[in-house]
Amino acid sequence: MTDEKTWLQATLTDKIPMARAMGVQIERLDDIGLCISLPLAPNINDKGTAFGGAMSSAMILAGWSLPRLLLRRAGVVADLVIGRCEVRFLAPVDGPFQTLCLWPDETACKAFLADVQAGRRGRLALEPHILHNNQQCATLAARYTALPSTA
Amino acid sequence: MTDEKTWLQATLTDKIPMARAMGVQIERLDDIGLCISLPLAPNINDKGTAFGGAMSSAMILAGWSLPRLLLRRAGVVADLVIGRCEVRFLAPVDGPFQTLCLWPDETACKAFLADVQAGRRGRLALEPHILHNNQQCATLAARYTALPSTA
Repeated sequence: MTDEKTWLQATLTDKIPMARAMGVQIERLDDIGLCISLPLAPNINDKGTAFGGAMSSAMILAGWSLPRLLLRRAGVVADLVIGRCEVRFLAPVDGPFQTLCLWPDETACKAFLADVQAGRRGRLALEPHILHNNQQCATLAARYTALPSTA
Repeated sequence: MTDEKTWLQATLTDKIPMARAMGVQIERLDDIGLCISLPLAPNINDKGTAFGGAMSSAMILAGWSLPRLLLRRAGVVADLVIGRCEVRFLAPVDGPFQTLCLWPDETACKAFLADVQAGRRGRLALEPHILHNNQQCATLAARYTALPSTA
């Protein structure tokens, strides 16, 4: 998945200026999921901890990345957007942190792709979270929708 | 409110690097609420529209600003954190955008301050949204909590 990792890192930091400003770095991409690491400094708030918007953005990016990779693997051209999400902030983060997103189960991934390939909207729910010192500090429950190209 | 506007602008962009990177600019602060404007370029995504994380972050900042001002007006020292929120993305944003947050009703604001002044946690619900071309493009429902200083 070295090629995928390189492609995803470039997609995030070359095409999304905020991801670059946040210093997102793909740490791991494998059969389990995706782990992105972030430094505290560019993501800090007035209290010296990670800004809620930065944690939300990191999780939104991590969640978006997995269905994006599914589309790429299947050679499907489709815009992938987030429809709604719920964020819970559980504990302050006072140092570098990670966002981890596990692959959804295979049935959900297959149904997502099948819908898009049939020209319908494909939907996939993802639940990335923020880790700091091995503690879960924030969670996101998000639904992403792939919009098949009408071209 | 010129002094407040200056103070809030400095708080956001001097203490929160992401707010600076996003180019947040307080456009209006009055008895109705707060309006922050943002350029598209630093907040763009791979599709040429506003990144969901940027819109979420802008709304989180707008929502946070109002109880922060209530605390400042009352001379209360307290950390103000976001506990949970729900974001709905309604329409793509392909140009400069604004985030608008209205003041909650006076009863809610007074109860929030009374709790903090009594040494309890003060909670306030806020519902900022994103505007682009006079259209509501995203909404946030968030609950903020003021944690009284234990010092």
